[in-house]
Amino acid sequence: MNEAIPKLLSITRPEELYKAGRHLLDAGGKRLRPTTLILAAEAVGGEAEHVLPAAVSIEIIHNFTLIHDDIMDQADLRRGMPTVHVKWGTSAAIIAGDALYSKAFEILASVNRPPERVVQCVSLLSKTCTDICEGQWMDISFEKRAEVTEQEYLEMVEKKTGVLYAASAKIGAILGGATREEADALWEFGRLVGIGFQIYDDVLDLITPEVILGKDRGGDIIEGKQTLIAIHALNKGVKIDIFGKGKATKKEMDDALLLLRESGSLDYAMNKAISYVEEGKSKLGVLKDTKAKKLLLGLADYMLERKY
Amino acid sequence: MNEAIPKLLSITRPEELYKAGRHLLDAGGKRLRPTTLILAAEAVGGEAEHVLPAAVSIEIIHNFTLIHDDIMDQADLRRGMPTVHVKWGTSAAIIAGDALYSKAFEILASVNRPPERVVQCVSLLSKTCTDICEGQWMDISFEKRAEVTEQEYLEMVEKKTGVLYAASAKIGAILGGATREEADALWEFGRLVGIGFQIYDDVLDLITPEVILGKDRGGDIIEGKQTLIAIHALNKGVKIDIFGKGKATKKEMDDALLLLRESGSLDYAMNKAISYVEEGKSKLGVLKDTKAKKLLLGLADYMLERKY
Repeated sequence: MNEAIPKLLSITRPEELYKAGRHLLDAGGKRLRPTTLILAAEAVGGEAEHVLPAAVSIEIIHNFTLIHDDIMDQADLRRGMPTVHVKWGTSAAIIAGDALYSKAFEILASVNRPPERVVQCVSLLSKTCTDICEGQWMDISFEKRAEVTEQEYLEMVEKKTGVLYAASAKIGAILGGATREEADALWEFGRLVGIGFQIYDDVLDLITPEVILGKDRGGDIIEGKQTLIAIHALNKGVKIDIFGKGKATKKEMDDALLLLRESGSLDYAMNKAISYVEEGKSKLGVLKDTKAKKLLLGLADYMLERKY
Repeated sequence: MNEAIPKLLSITRPEELYKAGRHLLDAGGKRLRPTTLILAAEAVGGEAEHVLPAAVSIEIIHNFTLIHDDIMDQADLRRGMPTVHVKWGTSAAIIAGDALYSKAFEILASVNRPPERVVQCVSLLSKTCTDICEGQWMDISFEKRAEVTEQEYLEMVEKKTGVLYAASAKIGAILGGATREEADALWEFGRLVGIGFQIYDDVLDLITPEVILGKDRGGDIIEGKQTLIAIHALNKGVKIDIFGKGKATKKEMDDALLLLRESGSLDYAMNKAISYVEEGKSKLGVLKDTKAKKLLLGLADYMLERKY
């Protein structure tokens, strides 16, 4: 992946545009989505090298969403580095995100697989991007509301995060030559594990030290984000003073964390994450036992073991 | 087109997202790009109804670029209405544009034509969107520079405007069943006519009354945009006091216009626009004489006859 990205997304003129576009991609990240895509292809009998461009395109789409989300969230840090709009300005960040968007489709369309399968993948990825936009829209509109139901939160998380994991797994499957049953099972695997991943991400946002997280701890609470933790706490009548206040001292954040532990809100979210990931894993029952399947199951477990 | 857009881009949940996305589309516009696409398909023996979704996708892409460009240009008015970011806010406008982007690819991928031709079109449209981003990047970076060459300006205009007309014509051709020669000729037709269109647009920005233009007259001059007119005037040593000043009285704008007429800068741009359009028309020599070809030539002429 670290070799394929610079090859498929080379820095050409205008150089600064491509530098801005590559900024977060080059910073690393966990590459969980492209890994899912490649393993899904292998798990249905396909070859990694055939689907590598598709894997790159998924990672590019993910990074495009990060660039635009960071503008909207006015986030200063990502992966321990200044965000694209902080470094290049808002207009540049909008264009850099847009350019990644088109590059992703350009790269996906170049995959050397049967054209009817490539068209299926383009259709799937574009629908997924629409879902992501809908999820991001919901996420932002939630911030203006005093109360959000757990169901609304889960729909938002499914769209904002679940579907891109689902698409990663299913695109790998389609290009790897999967049957319809296998492709659908891998979609469900990705969707459920992706939802679990995001719920756990909200937990990590609270409990992970900044030096590991690469951004401010408890940012969700300070920004007033409606996470499963916040929704549970609100339902329990727990009052978090710094919720949506825009800033907090370390002491205030520690107090908030203690309250959320005592109310069981952190455990509640953690258990939800576990149950989504376990349900996702169970979907792989239809696949033959292969090394790739084992790695996919391991990747699902990793979702809940990671520290950032 | 006015029936196909609401059908292919229906307003679903979250409603406000789709209302924001449809805002400019519903306001009309000249529909020159989708018309070009449909006529190109017919000119090579294809049928309009087969390519209608592709025509819609091109119009959606055009409107996506308008939404994001208006954010960057901080434009308040478009087609006589408040711009999307003015009406819904910047974050909403970013997402609405992103959603149109994915919808366009979703709709293009749904075209019921041979899959290898659909993949070609996806590849073409995505490369075109990348070019548009590069063009927009150049356009913005020009505003920070004291001097831009005519060649740089023409490259920017080709990318920002020419290629989307080129892609419209070529996608119509590919889906209409064109030979390679016909498809390439239609690309060149669209590219050259599109460049001519944009140069003429810069002329219209200066000479058209606000009530017809739907936005402030002379906006390019006030914003300090490096148009062919401005570049020619600078080379002639003409000094336009209000250039890049952010505002001007009606009297100051009239004076600037007079200076640009006297220096021959307006005529220079006008003649360039004519020569691009004429060269574009000549590319259609390879096509059989059909009603669609005649209409394409008429559409090219219209580029320079329109009043807005």
